[in-house]
Amino acid sequence: MIELAAQRCQLPRWRDRLQSADEAAALIHDGMTVGMSGFTRAGEAKQVPLALARRAEHEPFQITLMTGASLGHDTDGILADAGVLARRMPFQVDRRLRAAINRGEVMFVDSHLSEMSEQLRHDQLGALDIAVIEAVAITADGGIVPTASVGNSASFAAQADKVIIEFNVAAPEALIGLHDIYVPAKRPGRQPIPISAPDTRIGTPYIPVDPDKIAAIVLTQEQDSPADITPANEATQRIAEHLIGFFESEVAAGRMSLSLMPLQAGIGSVANAVLHGLMAGPFEDLTMYSEVLQDSTFELLDHGTLRFASASAITLSDAYGAKVWNNLERYRDRVVLRPQELSNHPGMSRRLGVIAINTAIEFDIYGNVNSTHINGTHMMNGIGGSGDFARNSHLSIFVTTSTARGGALSSVVPFVSHVDHVEHDVDILVTEHGLADLRGLAPRERARVIIDRCADPVYRPALAAYFDNACARGGHTPHCLEQALAWHVAAQRDGSMRALVDQPT
Amino acid sequence: MIELAAQRCQLPRWRDRLQSADEAAALIHDGMTVGMSGFTRAGEAKQVPLALARRAEHEPFQITLMTGASLGHDTDGILADAGVLARRMPFQVDRRLRAAINRGEVMFVDSHLSEMSEQLRHDQLGALDIAVIEAVAITADGGIVPTASVGNSASFAAQADKVIIEFNVAAPEALIGLHDIYVPAKRPGRQPIPISAPDTRIGTPYIPVDPDKIAAIVLTQEQDSPADITPANEATQRIAEHLIGFFESEVAAGRMSLSLMPLQAGIGSVANAVLHGLMAGPFEDLTMYSEVLQDSTFELLDHGTLRFASASAITLSDAYGAKVWNNLERYRDRVVLRPQELSNHPGMSRRLGVIAINTAIEFDIYGNVNSTHINGTHMMNGIGGSGDFARNSHLSIFVTTSTARGGALSSVVPFVSHVDHVEHDVDILVTEHGLADLRGLAPRERARVIIDRCADPVYRPALAAYFDNACARGGHTPHCLEQALAWHVAAQRDGSMRALVDQPT
Ligand SMILES: CC(C)(COP(=O)(O)OP(=O)(O)OC[C@H]1O[C@@H](n2cnc3c(N)ncnc32)[C@H](O)[C@@H]1OP(=O)(O)O)[C@@H](O)C(=O)NCCC(=O)NCCS
Ligand SMILES: CC(C)(COP(=O)(O)OP(=O)(O)OC[C@H]1O[C@@H](n2cnc3c(N)ncnc32)[C@H](O)[C@@H]1OP(=O)(O)O)[C@@H](O)C(=O)NCCC(=O)NCCS
Repeated sequence: MIELAAQRCQLPRWRDRLQSADEAAALIHDGMTVGMSGFTRAGEAKQVPLALARRAEHEPFQITLMTGASLGHDTDGILADAGVLARRMPFQVDRRLRAAINRGEVMFVDSHLSEMSEQLRHDQLGALDIAVIEAVAITADGGIVPTASVGNSASFAAQADKVIIEFNVAAPEALIGLHDIYVPAKRPGRQPIPISAPDTRIGTPYIPVDPDKIAAIVLTQEQDSPADITPANEATQRIAEHLIGFFESEVAAGRMSLSLMPLQAGIGSVANAVLHGLMAGPFEDLTMYSEVLQDSTFELLDHGTLRFASASAITLSDAYGAKVWNNLERYRDRVVLRPQELSNHPGMSRRLGVIAINTAIEFDIYGNVNSTHINGTHMMNGIGGSGDFARNSHLSIFVTTSTARGGALSSVVPFVSHVDHVEHDVDILVTEHGLADLRGLAPRERARVIIDRCADPVYRPALAAYFDNACARGGHTPHCLEQALAWHVAAQRDGSMRALVDQPT
Repeated sequence: MIELAAQRCQLPRWRDRLQSADEAAALIHDGMTVGMSGFTRAGEAKQVPLALARRAEHEPFQITLMTGASLGHDTDGILADAGVLARRMPFQVDRRLRAAINRGEVMFVDSHLSEMSEQLRHDQLGALDIAVIEAVAITADGGIVPTASVGNSASFAAQADKVIIEFNVAAPEALIGLHDIYVPAKRPGRQPIPISAPDTRIGTPYIPVDPDKIAAIVLTQEQDSPADITPANEATQRIAEHLIGFFESEVAAGRMSLSLMPLQAGIGSVANAVLHGLMAGPFEDLTMYSEVLQDSTFELLDHGTLRFASASAITLSDAYGAKVWNNLERYRDRVVLRPQELSNHPGMSRRLGVIAINTAIEFDIYGNVNSTHINGTHMMNGIGGSGDFARNSHLSIFVTTSTARGGALSSVVPFVSHVDHVEHDVDILVTEHGLADLRGLAPRERARVIIDRCADPVYRPALAAYFDNACARGGHTPHCLEQALAWHVAAQRDGSMRALVDQPT
């Protein structure tokens, strides 16, 4: 490993800083706040967190762990099971960590992905003791070339007292040059961020680090965990078709060109299906200004429909990963990875006019969206970047299948059990049954369109009955408060909302 | 009036376009979309809307009315009563219009104030037929110098087929030069908005208008309606004290200088009390980057504590108004009025690091805020700019008294009956009882702090009991769903939440 490392490390006397993962992890003490690289399973620190979990077996201690977003390799689960996590932010997707959060054992601070770096920079989250960042190369003055994600790493490196580098000698060398690192200045006096298109480059290809802060370099060679790609099914296919049809009608109405506007797409099967669908359509010269690039992005790049993609991470399946990582040169001029505070920046969404496509768990008849809480109480993953994009985008789209658990739960409900996206932030809703275009509509109008276009036919009459009863009571956003959460109460009690269908409210 | 007008109008042959309000109003037909100036009772079109209401008495017709924000002079009420309003956006505060909205008669599209111009510009709200804009002067090439607000007028003038100018010859001439008009370009290709401080000027002192579009000039001389200033009382005074104490502690902790960060303050008595309180404190060289400037802004400018204020409108009481309007020269270098899409721009909030102070109707134990709906159904005013600022600011603060209706309603509830601001967007909550600093806290931690610091002592045990019962069931955001809205159901039934105090859930 040392020879491979030497080829990519320019830092003088770097060998003096080499440590084992266990040695480096020993720098992390009980009560510390640690910032680690990693965003949607890409580019995370891989060895030091495992060393922490091992140490906790015989020496209990707890930390606050901050990352870019989710980690792969079950790292969050391993750390949660080891009892290492007192506090975790800003996002996670791990089954075991999720359970610990929902038991109230880990304090999870679910946050907008663009915001945490700002809060850290302005000392609103306390001091950051240590950063652990995966690198593919190290420059002569200590600069870190990150791997498949940037996430919050640039801010972590700037804010932390000490930096541990996980130097991944197996990461593809072609990653070098892919990143564009720019960190907004402290306020006041901050100048505009000079990005005017997805392909604008404004920074350095590495994360500047004070070399005196580099406390340890740990050599690693594990690959990122592959993305779990849920294959498209009939429902996601239909959702994609509705959305593609909508884009075509926007073009026909003269509201957008065939290049649409820069696309943001959440992770998952619907997003993949939509991007696939764009390949078949008449679209050309598309761009993405998104958080994470999946297989479908590279397929679109290969196909030529997509001209450029900007994001904070690349997360690929095993099959597609091999193809992309071995041919990265081919994409070098067409992909850039940025810090997540830039990929998700509210000002950039507004400036570029992003089309934001994110997934809902459920939405209500007025268009309020729940993206995070199962039955209002149990955290699934977190709000992630959906709020950064939905509020400030040109078009804010949420997709979901109209039912869950084999039809036992309606994803269209009278009153969402938790709100992540308020109706003002939701322009378009899509399920396999259809697309509701809510632009310029008042709540009572939204309700009719949402029930008619998006709800499953089985649940439509009960939703319409609720809405009619509510309207009879009046109000801008009519509700029967004593019935508003009855659907979720039934779901909790019976595991199903079918009771509501049999006796509509 | 003509002579006064002549002194401030450079447009050649402008007299040919003079019309009475009734004649100009005749340009507006059934089914049209009309954009009028006016923002928090400032600078609104005053004669044409009344002419519309008169005409509707004998010739029923309906329009979609867009403005900057709220109108004065009971204009919205008069139009609502006359049945002229089919659709209204993006904000209102009128008692009679509110009633019509809540009866479902007027389709009210409650929107983020920064967003409507974008939607209009990109043709997401249909075509704008006519703009009606109040002017204090008209330039040689048809440019409109607006009066006490800019609002959406620059976009209305650009988008409308025809422009009616209400030329207010009684508006203070010193308004000329106060405005900074800049309209973001269509996308793609939009460049960064080059504002880097509240006092940056980037545009023209007038709204550019194609002179061929000026279909009528109507002479007027009414003043703006004065602001209703609710005097400070003990509760608002205490809220202000808690907040000032918090700012002092932020300075002591080194997180801000004595100049704080640019302040945004909603309208109303708490905002006024807070700004007053800043006068007594150690603060210096303050700035505002807000929507609307009230009496307290000018008092702070006079006092020297405030260095500069940027907003979209000036709304003053009768008493203070006379003082300011007659001495406007004195403030010329220290105040600027911008289009609301710039005063409320998400990117500007993030760039400048605005401290956003807005008012809640109620908030829940997890920090979700309802700013708009009484008991979840009945619209009060609208979200206004609060969402623009809360999501993207440096610090997002919401204030309210801990109870309403003489203590019969708790403003701290288990589950808000409507969500305008999700917990991620709420850093600080303040009532007369205390201040909850929620930064970096998970929901279960937020609940304890909010109940202890903000709730009225009468309601605290019932809230704590709800929370404990909910925690026993588990979840990241614990709730007892079948009880979650019981407080509002009681309020609806009894006009009071006291029943919950007697038998805690
Ligand atoms: C919303 C989100 C959870 C959907 O994920 P997904 O994988 O596409 O959707 P799935 O259909 O697999 O649903 C995920 C879970 O929610 C459950 N669910 C879905 N709809 C539900 C409903 N209406 N009621 C209750 N549970 C529901 C599913 O049963 C599943 O639970 P399980 O894993 O225990 O079976 C996911 O997109 C997310 O976390 N979004 C928020 C973050 C975000 O938007 N980031 C920005 C882009 S990355
Ligand atoms: C929230 C808002 C309505 C508060 O207004 P305010 O004048 O400071 O507050 P008030 O105490 O007078 O309350 C306004 C009304 O809400 C009612 N109210 C307040 N708290 C309540 C509660 N917890 N439950 C039920 N009703 C409540 C009051 O009774 C009053 O109703 P009334 O006029 O019929 O008596 C107002 O700030 C607003 O519209 N905000 C949203 C827009 C915004 O924030 N814009 C950005 C800055 S301008």
